[in-house]
Amino acid sequence: MPDGLGAPLSEPLFERAALIGIGLIGSSLAHACRRKGLARAIVAADASPAVRETVRKLAIADEVAETAAAGVEGADLVILCAPVGAMGAIAEEIAPHLKPGAIVSDVGSVKASIIGAVAPHLPLGVHFIPGHPVAGTEQSGPTAGFATLFLNRWTILTPPEGTDPKALARLSAFWTAAGANVEVMAPAHHDLVLAITSHVPHLIAYNIVGTAADLEEVTRSEVIKFSAGGFRDFTRIAASDPTMWRDVFLNNKEAVLEMLGRFNEDLTALQRMIRRDDGQGLFDLFTRTRAIRRGIIEQGQETAAPDFGRRTGEN
Amino acid sequence: MPDGLGAPLSEPLFERAALIGIGLIGSSLAHACRRKGLARAIVAADASPAVRETVRKLAIADEVAETAAAGVEGADLVILCAPVGAMGAIAEEIAPHLKPGAIVSDVGSVKASIIGAVAPHLPLGVHFIPGHPVAGTEQSGPTAGFATLFLNRWTILTPPEGTDPKALARLSAFWTAAGANVEVMAPAHHDLVLAITSHVPHLIAYNIVGTAADLEEVTRSEVIKFSAGGFRDFTRIAASDPTMWRDVFLNNKEAVLEMLGRFNEDLTALQRMIRRDDGQGLFDLFTRTRAIRRGIIEQGQETAAPDFGRRTGEN
Repeated sequence: MPDGLGAPLSEPLFERAALIGIGLIGSSLAHACRRKGLARAIVAADASPAVRETVRKLAIADEVAETAAAGVEGADLVILCAPVGAMGAIAEEIAPHLKPGAIVSDVGSVKASIIGAVAPHLPLGVHFIPGHPVAGTEQSGPTAGFATLFLNRWTILTPPEGTDPKALARLSAFWTAAGANVEVMAPAHHDLVLAITSHVPHLIAYNIVGTAADLEEVTRSEVIKFSAGGFRDFTRIAASDPTMWRDVFLNNKEAVLEMLGRFNEDLTALQRMIRRDDGQGLFDLFTRTRAIRRGIIEQGQETAAPDFGRRTGEN
Repeated sequence: MPDGLGAPLSEPLFERAALIGIGLIGSSLAHACRRKGLARAIVAADASPAVRETVRKLAIADEVAETAAAGVEGADLVILCAPVGAMGAIAEEIAPHLKPGAIVSDVGSVKASIIGAVAPHLPLGVHFIPGHPVAGTEQSGPTAGFATLFLNRWTILTPPEGTDPKALARLSAFWTAAGANVEVMAPAHHDLVLAITSHVPHLIAYNIVGTAADLEEVTRSEVIKFSAGGFRDFTRIAASDPTMWRDVFLNNKEAVLEMLGRFNEDLTALQRMIRRDDGQGLFDLFTRTRAIRRGIIEQGQETAAPDFGRRTGEN
């Protein structure tokens, strides 16, 4: 079955791509690089011996490096795929080893704080272009990756002012070849957009699953049995990697608190409608929210199959 | 491909099953009745001429009745499948036409208020056993139904004290044959359990989609493009039928407000952790919530495939 990624490139875009941190995103990038021939050599580095061993077994990289510093030697593309909170230390470690002219990017879910943590360490003569592929699953670790993770998803790049247009074009071409659509944005705006489209949704999903787990009147077994009423949809994203998400909230605090404030105001209004039997107000909101899903389906960001297509083949 | 429902019954459980209100649940029940031979005749009634026309075209019932009163004539099983707010009026309408000894049930998502609205109208000599199949998709209307909607899902029955055990056994057998697991519960407990597993999840999904739609700093186009970061999961249940959900909130007000209060307390605590940089508190919560999803998957209430299996065949 064709996977939608098209034929490999006739010439690789990079000689040597170093992926630092091999979880869901790092391993998916390795798969995509290999599948599309994006780099002549793929180097994978990870601080965990167990992860390195898995990467070797999966054979998703041409070389496996024990340290980030060793991994970036000679690389003309370096992508940091570690949790947001680890980026600063990695930047400090790799700085003296970066090849002049290399493009350094990342895949972190927040941008302003990563730029603050990474940029000061990097030497002149490398091109730092932060990035964020808006793609993922609730699975984590090096075995979770697959080549089509970025297909038809958006990757946001947040190049600093004065970025070399050629370097930006090259990094864009890389993501495009991996199947993604590329959008360029200011870091602060990225952080606000992702606060509402990703961070606050994760927060309230974690929150309701926590609330349900703590109830005394309703047992955990009941929560599980009757989860098909809607609850189980929330448990998917509340199963995402805890370290990654802790770092996201600590590093996009202002935008998350701002959006959470809006969410809370709206929820209070909704609560008031229920208390006051405002059926018309409820109906109006519940009608208005359908349009957004239609847009998401029309733009290929979601399946149109009922129930996420969970029941394929049943109908 | 086998659909998992098994062979039809050798003898129907009911002579004449009347389904009153043909939306997602009513049409799925018609399909399931037909597929499993649960009733010798299936009668579908709906107040809307357009829906009746669709039911005729789909040929999912043996007879189509114009009114609920006509629909229940001679039926030994009557299932009310209308929105919660319409149940009382339907009960009043059908009461004089019910066959003595008939079982009257419903599929409403709340139970205490439906019992209050329906029971006073029903004549002595019929068995009123309220029910709620915890199953659904975000689609609505008579074309949305399918025979396996209830397969491996739970149906909750809330029989009043003194219910005839034979009638209860017969209705349980009906749901079991339709593929469901049956649980018996008190109405008030049902309403509390569903408040946390279904009603509050829907409320906060509607709420965040509304919040996102109203932002000025982030455009609707950006919300749609970057929805794969988590937001799109919420849009599925926020696309559910507005009339049905308005009625649920108006009719399960106390339990919803109670559970919403807990959710809000927990969210305030979470907000405080973010503001105070309490990484350990965040990490602990995010770790704890994974166990619930594992339980849901282990008990067959959810797919284990990443991303709900949206990307089947890609990996």
